[in-house]
Amino acid sequence: MDVVDYTPTPEQYAWTFGGVAPSHRIKPGTLLRLWTDDAFCGRLRDVTDLPSASLNMPYVNPQTGPFHVEGAEPGDTLALHIVDLTPARGWGASTTIPLFGGLTGTDRTALLQDPLPEQTWIYEVNSDRGTVEFAAQSTDLTLELPIAPMLGTVGVAPAAGEARSSLVPDVFGGNMDTPEMKPGVTCYLGVNVDGALFSVGDGHYRQGEGESCGTAVEGAMHVTLLVDLIKGGGPAWPRIESDEYLTVIGSSRPLEDAWRASQVDMIRWLGELYGLDAMDGYQLVTQISESPLANVCDANYSAATKLPKTLLPAADPYDAMHRSLREQAAAL
Amino acid sequence: MDVVDYTPTPEQYAWTFGGVAPSHRIKPGTLLRLWTDDAFCGRLRDVTDLPSASLNMPYVNPQTGPFHVEGAEPGDTLALHIVDLTPARGWGASTTIPLFGGLTGTDRTALLQDPLPEQTWIYEVNSDRGTVEFAAQSTDLTLELPIAPMLGTVGVAPAAGEARSSLVPDVFGGNMDTPEMKPGVTCYLGVNVDGALFSVGDGHYRQGEGESCGTAVEGAMHVTLLVDLIKGGGPAWPRIESDEYLTVIGSSRPLEDAWRASQVDMIRWLGELYGLDAMDGYQLVTQISESPLANVCDANYSAATKLPKTLLPAADPYDAMHRSLREQAAAL
Amino acid sequence: MDVVDYTPTPEQYAWTFGGVAPSHRIKPGTLLRLWTDDAFCGRLRDVTDLPSASLNMPYVNPQTGPFHVEGAEPGDTLALHIVDLTPARGWGASTTIPLFGGLTGTDRTALLQDPLPEQTWIYEVNSDRGTVEFAAQSTDLTLELPIAPMLGTVGVAPAAGEARSSLVPDVFGGNMDTPEMKPGVTCYLGVNVDGALFSVGDGHYRQGEGESCGTAVEGAMHVTLLVDLIKGGGPAWPRIESDEYLTVIGSSRPLEDAWRASQVDMIRWLGELYGLDAMDGYQLVTQISESPLANVCDANYSAATKLPKTLLPAADPYDAMHRSLREQAAAL
Amino acid sequence: MDVVDYTPTPEQYAWTFGGVAPSHRIKPGTLLRLWTDDAFCGRLRDVTDLPSASLNMPYVNPQTGPFHVEGAEPGDTLALHIVDLTPARGWGASTTIPLFGGLTGTDRTALLQDPLPEQTWIYEVNSDRGTVEFAAQSTDLTLELPIAPMLGTVGVAPAAGEARSSLVPDVFGGNMDTPEMKPGVTCYLGVNVDGALFSVGDGHYRQGEGESCGTAVEGAMHVTLLVDLIKGGGPAWPRIESDEYLTVIGSSRPLEDAWRASQVDMIRWLGELYGLDAMDGYQLVTQISESPLANVCDANYSAATKLPKTLLPAADPYDAMHRSLREQAAAL
Repeated sequence: MDVVDYTPTPEQYAWTFGGVAPSHRIKPGTLLRLWTDDAFCGRLRDVTDLPSASLNMPYVNPQTGPFHVEGAEPGDTLALHIVDLTPARGWGASTTIPLFGGLTGTDRTALLQDPLPEQTWIYEVNSDRGTVEFAAQSTDLTLELPIAPMLGTVGVAPAAGEARSSLVPDVFGGNMDTPEMKPGVTCYLGVNVDGALFSVGDGHYRQGEGESCGTAVEGAMHVTLLVDLIKGGGPAWPRIESDEYLTVIGSSRPLEDAWRASQVDMIRWLGELYGLDAMDGYQLVTQISESPLANVCDANYSAATKLPKTLLPAADPYDAMHRSLREQAAAL
Repeated sequence: MDVVDYTPTPEQYAWTFGGVAPSHRIKPGTLLRLWTDDAFCGRLRDVTDLPSASLNMPYVNPQTGPFHVEGAEPGDTLALHIVDLTPARGWGASTTIPLFGGLTGTDRTALLQDPLPEQTWIYEVNSDRGTVEFAAQSTDLTLELPIAPMLGTVGVAPAAGEARSSLVPDVFGGNMDTPEMKPGVTCYLGVNVDGALFSVGDGHYRQGEGESCGTAVEGAMHVTLLVDLIKGGGPAWPRIESDEYLTVIGSSRPLEDAWRASQVDMIRWLGELYGLDAMDGYQLVTQISESPLANVCDANYSAATKLPKTLLPAADPYDAMHRSLREQAAAL
Repeated sequence: MDVVDYTPTPEQYAWTFGGVAPSHRIKPGTLLRLWTDDAFCGRLRDVTDLPSASLNMPYVNPQTGPFHVEGAEPGDTLALHIVDLTPARGWGASTTIPLFGGLTGTDRTALLQDPLPEQTWIYEVNSDRGTVEFAAQSTDLTLELPIAPMLGTVGVAPAAGEARSSLVPDVFGGNMDTPEMKPGVTCYLGVNVDGALFSVGDGHYRQGEGESCGTAVEGAMHVTLLVDLIKGGGPAWPRIESDEYLTVIGSSRPLEDAWRASQVDMIRWLGELYGLDAMDGYQLVTQISESPLANVCDANYSAATKLPKTLLPAADPYDAMHRSLREQAAAL
Repeated sequence: MDVVDYTPTPEQYAWTFGGVAPSHRIKPGTLLRLWTDDAFCGRLRDVTDLPSASLNMPYVNPQTGPFHVEGAEPGDTLALHIVDLTPARGWGASTTIPLFGGLTGTDRTALLQDPLPEQTWIYEVNSDRGTVEFAAQSTDLTLELPIAPMLGTVGVAPAAGEARSSLVPDVFGGNMDTPEMKPGVTCYLGVNVDGALFSVGDGHYRQGEGESCGTAVEGAMHVTLLVDLIKGGGPAWPRIESDEYLTVIGSSRPLEDAWRASQVDMIRWLGELYGLDAMDGYQLVTQISESPLANVCDANYSAATKLPKTLLPAADPYDAMHRSLREQAAAL
């Protein structure tokens, strides 16, 4: 098994999907052991570090990569299996960025009200207990919250010559900010350009569904990935398979369109797996889908459609790619 | 304990929240044992029963009630504890109604494409196994799905002299179509008119989050409710408490507004319970909220914000009303 | 010609469409000479009169009526010709109501930012010059703006037993807040209940498209209407005919749905008038429709689709009803 | 005056804003005489030419340029004065592209209904009469419609290393598809990268507001532009000045956000020109803005806020740039 270890220097960070030369050329089957900086480039370390003074907008969400996957061509399916995510710092940070977030006016939901104040929360990591600590600032409340590591950003280069900010989620993946992107899952992404040119970043030590204020418990991450390639079959939207769920992530505005995109692609997937026509698929997702939100704060909103495998007949999508990658991961 | 048993005749069905004389006057503390017809008034019994021939639009979602709660005044909080929901027929039905549903154009998302076909699915109830059976029509696939009974519609009379169709969810509750409305929960609704005038209906034997096609596994239901009243404190949006979760349901369009409403009222609730200011509340829901969709098909869409009690300090909202009702229910 | 003069007392104001007993029963062909109070019931008379102190929410937008039109049945088309609108006071008022308006968070676009300040502007009417005067408060700028009187609210009782606040626009008309509702136009509304039960109110001395802050130059109005009835043909959405334009007003959220509804009903109208199929109608509105916004602040947003008659073959919709009413109005 | 004449070959077409090397380096003050191909690259010439067979998606909306403007730096304001637009072919074309358009489901408003049929309309240009001819296909109706030439696409390279498809409108301008972009106006665009790198294309012989079906009367165009540069002052959204109007174009989803963006930037502009604070600006746009839609079909929707100069005190934005360019154009 090819193994690539890579910790980018700040000069090597990528800030877009597309428009960036690959950091590495890898073969399908490669194991990647990566380090990703946090969305703030590690600059928020104390509650007194505020975005307007500490961040260099729009240079947030630095990406590790992109990786050129040999043999990947438009129309193919990139499979990224998240073997492990381990916090790489002893603290995570969250903050409110003026005119960014789900419960504030923004540059687009353009309103005349004053912005919310900038405020930063630091979450100490307790590795032994597997928790981060929320410390309120208006009271003395503290809460231990389980670490639930995930990647906010996983994506390939977009189609049609576009280059998109690492803050944007769309059909190419990107900043979906979904808690579904966690250890043990396989993410399937449609390839748009030769080599796929995928990158990852934006680790979260934990995040609620919706990422209300716009920033999770952001933290640098050790990321272990298995990379594989399926010829053809590129899905319309990012798909995620775990041992328990089939999931599709849609990203758009308004939020109902993000959800619709995820639903329609899931109905397509049901057709591929079980031969159900669209009406039967529509009926089945109506009764069994779980629909947790991913983010309602980014340039596009993201929503998930999840189907529990226990309610479905056995199936091994993409020629049992997920099962195979799970086994490879277990053997590491 | 006062007990009221009530099975309305079709002539007694209510079709709106507000604008209907009460079927009963009850005291806080009353136990209701009700029967609710299904959304289709029991008219879809076979896959050949189609909405355009069998339904009498807009007379769907018949309500049982309304109930006048003595002493309830505008600004108060009605507490409805769902003691039990038991399917009252041996089959449930789901169907596609032309230009209604989440993955089709509608009267509002007005498009020029042809409507989807009308199609009805019948789900046989297997009480012993606690399942309903999905039978595909394009293949021979059948699936056993666990019964997970819930009420699509729980609401009070709206404010300002309005009367709203039982198809509409809004601040008064109504057709929220959320799987959170299940046995064991207490629903808190703000009272808008003397007596509150609440009603219930639209039982679902199960439903996915989003209720994609517009109709769940619709079935008549035996509904056991404990009714209580809290003076004052009427919440802006319907709140639901279970042993495991605090939940708020927002309903609006576009979908992000439904979610925002649920989030902001949850932040308000956190302030009431723990004294957190809005910024701390914003931060905390960002990291711990679960955000499952309820419906993306009704006149307003509905979204839930759920906080796991295990992550929060102990608290007994509304003077421990939920705990008290749970104990009363257990003693029945 | 039957003539009805009516100035309601405050006790006679109607606050909903539907759910209100008729103030009058009239025959088709009746001339109404009405007085309508302004949206604020005349309570904002000075820049120091602020909504929270002066208004009695939700009792705004008082309606004059409703009028029962003899012979009107569900499915019919009510024709209301606006003969004249004349300001009935020497001043109009506009104000910002906290958490109401197009450029602020609201109860639904629920955000955490502080509300905008309450502020009231008084516009003196100069009848000789036909102007109202805008007086800035942050500078000494004053501007003379032409009076362009219109009715914010024209509607019938809704279907299905609903009663809707006079703040809401929807398929029944209501608070559409469109500058198209001006002297010389005929408004066609689908009848939902026996007698139609229409009412009018919410006069504006002028208004920009979108009614950004939520309140126009609100003023009491002398309203002269000719009322007529067309059997059958009730349109899906309110239609307006002037000498120059055919217009449809759609109302929904998000705003694209309001526009879509107006477009699709216009394409239907083109089919009725010229026999164009939907694809030809789609193509034609694509190239010739004017699409001014009406309001982006109310419970539903409203958008207009307007087609210039000069670009279309001659046609006299509804058996030349508009032409006939224009002639009757001219003969008064 | 420097003059550049440029008719790109198909190999020279640009398909994105950003990510493309400049075709020319020009000085501020340069006159450009350009040719732009139509959105379909001239491939739809007959009603039997249908998109799926004739177009090479996503290679539509070819751009002429980009032009590097010497001295332009991020934060500056590019001024593009449209001196003249003259149809460059004897016919225009419009068509329905499956799952693209305002009254159909799309890749994002993902629905299960069948796509609308592909259908192409050819509009013969009558230069003498200044008209194009609409010919219905379901009836024998033909209509002469005035030519009203405009540019669908005018934009600069976006910020933050992004490259965006020429089908997308956003803060950088792009595919706004607004009828306001017509001869005689000056468009002000904020510069994001050295040289601004602007391009133009997508000529329309005429278009309704909203561009309902997604394609206007698309036609190759002779484009005469005067280019100038203002140091600093880059607006948040594209601004357009004509002799009659100040206009801002916002682009986003949902449509209300496009409108809000245009409104808030217009309020900012009123502050710059007249010193009005935001509340006075809010009040003034409420009463005087015209709000025609631009497109409700593209990747973002676009809406205009227009203020008539006749209602405002005299002002010469950007140091009378528009007046100066008008005079220069008149002297050509």
